[in-house]
Amino acid sequence: MTVKLVVLYTQPSDPEAFDRHYFGTHMPLVSGIPGLLRTETGRIGVAVDGGEQTYYRVTELYFADQDALQAAFASSEGQTTAADYQEIAPPGSRMFVASVDD
Amino acid sequence: MTVKLVVLYTQPSDPEAFDRHYFGTHMPLVSGIPGLLRTETGRIGVAVDGGEQTYYRVTELYFADQDALQAAFASSEGQTTAADYQEIAPPGSRMFVASVDD
Repeated sequence: MTVKLVVLYTQPSDPEAFDRHYFGTHMPLVSGIPGLLRTETGRIGVAVDGGEQTYYRVTELYFADQDALQAAFASSEGQTTAADYQEIAPPGSRMFVASVDD
Repeated sequence: MTVKLVVLYTQPSDPEAFDRHYFGTHMPLVSGIPGLLRTETGRIGVAVDGGEQTYYRVTELYFADQDALQAAFASSEGQTTAADYQEIAPPGSRMFVASVDD
């Protein structure tokens, strides 16, 4: 069953610096993660529920299954990417694994 | 530019009742929304960030652009689906629009 790592970045204090880091460093690291099937990224525009504009970006990384995801983040490329995530993610950012329904 | 409506459902008090409503009523309503390109749904398993298990499900609805999304939710099918969302979404659920990067 396909799984995806869903990352929700909260609003950065400096969006330009965030974008530079994200597109210039972070996503290139992500693309080197072994077993990664595909990536989907998006800029969050409007909170339709009328709630707070909590999140700035959503990033999803797809893997064949849970084992592939675990192997990916056990790899050196995965560890480097995870370390860079700690640098880029504003406080309150969330990251979770979802099993994609058929 | 493709846009997606991202819905994050918080943990329901009765997951079985939620799933019955979600798969039996809500997603069939969603599938009737005009202009909907595709849907991706997933069950959230693990909060990898060590934070709270805030969310139970993630649902994404894809549209060709912002205008198509607005037209979709102005339609009677969209309004019916939005009303059903109010019934099914546990408190604290989030809904936002994201512009998908190329």
